[in-house]
Formats: sequence, structure tokens, C-alpha cells
Amino acid sequence: MNKNGFDIIEVRAGIEAENGRFAALVRELTDREGVFLINLMASPGAGKTSVLCRVIDALSERFGVGVMEADMDADVDARTVAEHGARVVQLHTGTSCHMDAKMTLKGLESFKKPLPQVIILENVGNLVCPAEFDVGADMRLMILSVPEGDDKPLKYPLMFTVSDWMLINKTDTAPVFDFDFTRCEDNVRTLNPDMVIFRVSAKTCEGIGEFTNRLAEVVSSALSKKRKGAGV
Amino acid sequence: MNKNGFDIIEVRAGIEAENGRFAALVRELTDREGVFLINLMASPGAGKTSVLCRVIDALSERFGVGVMEADMDADVDARTVAEHGARVVQLHTGTSCHMDAKMTLKGLESFKKPLPQVIILENVGNLVCPAEFDVGADMRLMILSVPEGDDKPLKYPLMFTVSDWMLINKTDTAPVFDFDFTRCEDNVRTLNPDMVIFRVSAKTCEGIGEFTNRLAEVVSSALSKKRKGAGV
Repeated sequence: MNKNGFDIIEVRAGIEAENGRFAALVRELTDREGVFLINLMASPGAGKTSVLCRVIDALSERFGVGVMEADMDADVDARTVAEHGARVVQLHTGTSCHMDAKMTLKGLESFKKPLPQVIILENVGNLVCPAEFDVGADMRLMILSVPEGDDKPLKYPLMFTVSDWMLINKTDTAPVFDFDFTRCEDNVRTLNPDMVIFRVSAKTCEGIGEFTNRLAEVVSSALSKKRKGAGV
Repeated sequence: MNKNGFDIIEVRAGIEAENGRFAALVRELTDREGVFLINLMASPGAGKTSVLCRVIDALSERFGVGVMEADMDADVDARTVAEHGARVVQLHTGTSCHMDAKMTLKGLESFKKPLPQVIILENVGNLVCPAEFDVGADMRLMILSVPEGDDKPLKYPLMFTVSDWMLINKTDTAPVFDFDFTRCEDNVRTLNPDMVIFRVSAKTCEGIGEFTNRLAEVVSSALSKKRKGAGV
């Protein structure tokens, strides 16, 4: 305990250990049930829900698709997503600014069996806190939108470091913003050399096909491995 | 303690009480030293730094202006702001996704006396967590930018509830986005009937004069009261 009566580090360590235990339970569940779980993260207004609708449209021909909508207390996104034909669970995080593994597990358990083969967690709109919590997902997918600016990897490095795939969304608005794609991507790859990056516009669908085709391949391959692992 | 070995509520209550004590110390300091403190909050990429530069340009004819730049670990904004002639302190928040009152006090104490009459805290880019922490400011000023969408008050209500003034920035990009100003402002006023709202473009300066003139009046009046209260 420090001179102010707190030891924030100990609290954090406790929370992280707790979170790790629940992330392992999430992985057990998704492996056993044959689910590919995507943790979708971005700032407010980067286009999470629009991208999500494109993913549902593209993947639902091949896979059952489910969505967990995490919001502080709204349900506008859940309604939009449900209209696109996905099975939706609304999670209210209350005052929490991110999803953790325990909340994710609770969300997964609320789907009726058999679970959808692809479940996308639309995290709370926040480029900072969700990056700190492993929810046990198979893929961390982040979105940066053109209007946010090409300097964001320098200013919010953790999100860009922990994500597996990144979409640069709203490419259709590039003419009205000074966004240097090469500079942005170079900065991202300095933090995270393995990041898979797509430039897309969820509005015009530019680049969406390339992204969703590649995603379908990765999902298919991962589900096949999970089936073998589960002895199916 | 709950069944998982945690009681997050108690931790939060402790943190809030601690924060409240430091917020009171911040108010004592700014009243004594004759400082008007502004807590500037917004999502990443909403235009905090651009707005800040406009405010410095407008206010520095009448007041000494200082800036505390809170970033997780970058200093790009501090350099931009320093070029506009403000006295700048760079605060690195490390893994913290918001500024609290203790960090704010530390930042204020690092200015050489006499302190600038107006000090603007540029908070971490985050529409969620900074709203939860009273840093002891005289004004909470938030920015929502047009590309983020007019539905954000519904999805991130706390920030819109606790702020005193709100800028809707990037009005120059309205033609390429479906942003309903009236709907947005109505939703804000449902949460917070007293919110003072300006529509601005930090890029083209549209609306900036109206905003900064009104700000200068409020600052002037508040500083006059602080001087009387301090017996100066």
C-alpha cells in the first residue's frame, strides 16, 4: 500500500488474473462448441456497426452468425444488426468502458445451442480500455476511420499493438481529410509487424469483398481445426 | 467481497473518494492563484488539439494561456500547441485512459508561478472514462465531431450529461456525412438541458469566433470572482 492508502497495481494485477481465468473459460467454450469469436474494437463513430452489417451479409451464406452488442445502456446497434439477420445478444456494461472476459462468457452462455459458428463481439466504442482486456477471442479486429487521423497509432499504441487485423474505414471520405495511408500503415507496422490491414469503406463497399473473403477463409480454417480438436 | 474474491464497488468508492479530495485541492489552488481551468474531453480524432490552437489564438491577447497535454505516451500534441505560443506541460498517463484530479494537481503544480490565467487540460482521447472523473475544473468542455455521428449522445450519455459546454466540430464535413444537427442537439438537451452548444469547424474557423468570444466573457467574469474571493 502506498502513502495515499491505495495500491492500484495490486488491484490491477488481481483484475488481470481474474480476467485471464475467464478468458481461458471462453476459449474452452468456443473450442468445444465450434465457435470463431471476433472481438471488434474501435473509437465511437469509427463504423463498427456498419462494418459488422457488411460482415454479416458476407458470412451468413456460409456460416451461422451471431453478435454480442456491448453498450453502456443503449440498444440502437442491436436493433440495426438484428435487421441484418444475425442472432443478437445485447450486453449492457453499465459504467464499464470495456468488455472483459467474464462479461463475454456470460454473453456466450446466453445464446441458445447450437451456438452460431461465428460470433462477433462489438465492444464499447473506446480506443483505449478494451485493448487492455483479453476476452478470449480468436481474432482481435480493430477499426480506425479516416476522419480520426493518421497519427492515432502514435497516440494510442496499445490497441494497434494487440490487434490481429485492422480496417482503415471510411476511405470514401479521404478527399476531405488529410490522411496519409502509407504513413499510418508504416506506424502501425512499427508497433505490430504482423498486423493484417485492409482499406475499406463500409458505406460504398470499396475493399469490403477482399476483407470478407479473407475473413471467411480464416474462419473456415479455424473452425476445421476446432472440430478436429474436439474429436468431431 | 463477492464469490470471485473481488468487490469492485468498494474499490471504485475508494477511488472516487480519493479523487474528490484531490479535486478539492485543485479548486483551492486555482482559486488562490486566479486560474480558470478547462477540462477538454473528446474521442480520439474529434479535433481537441485543433480546437485548442484556435482557443489559444483567440484568448492569448487577453489572458496568459497554459496547456496540460495528457497523453498515454506521445508528445505530438504538446509540440503543436507549444508552436501556438501557450505554456505547455506534457503529462504521460501511462496505462491510464483518463486524467484524475491527483494527476491534474501534479500538472498544475509543475507550472512556474505566476500561473497562466487560463489553463486547458487536453484529456486523453476517450468519450467514456474521462467523464467519470471530476478533475476540479471550472468548465468541462467536450467535442463531438460530425464524422462520429449524431447518435453518440444516446450511446455515451455520461459525457454529454456531465459537460458544461459542447462543440460540434468539423461542420465543414457535414456534406459527406448524414449528421442531423437538430436531432443530435435535442438528444443532448434531453440528457443535459443546460448544455451550451456551438457548431464549429476548427479547420475553416466557422463558428469559432462566437465560441471564443463567449468563452472569453465567461473566463473574465470567473477570474474577477476568484480575485474578489482571494481578497485581491
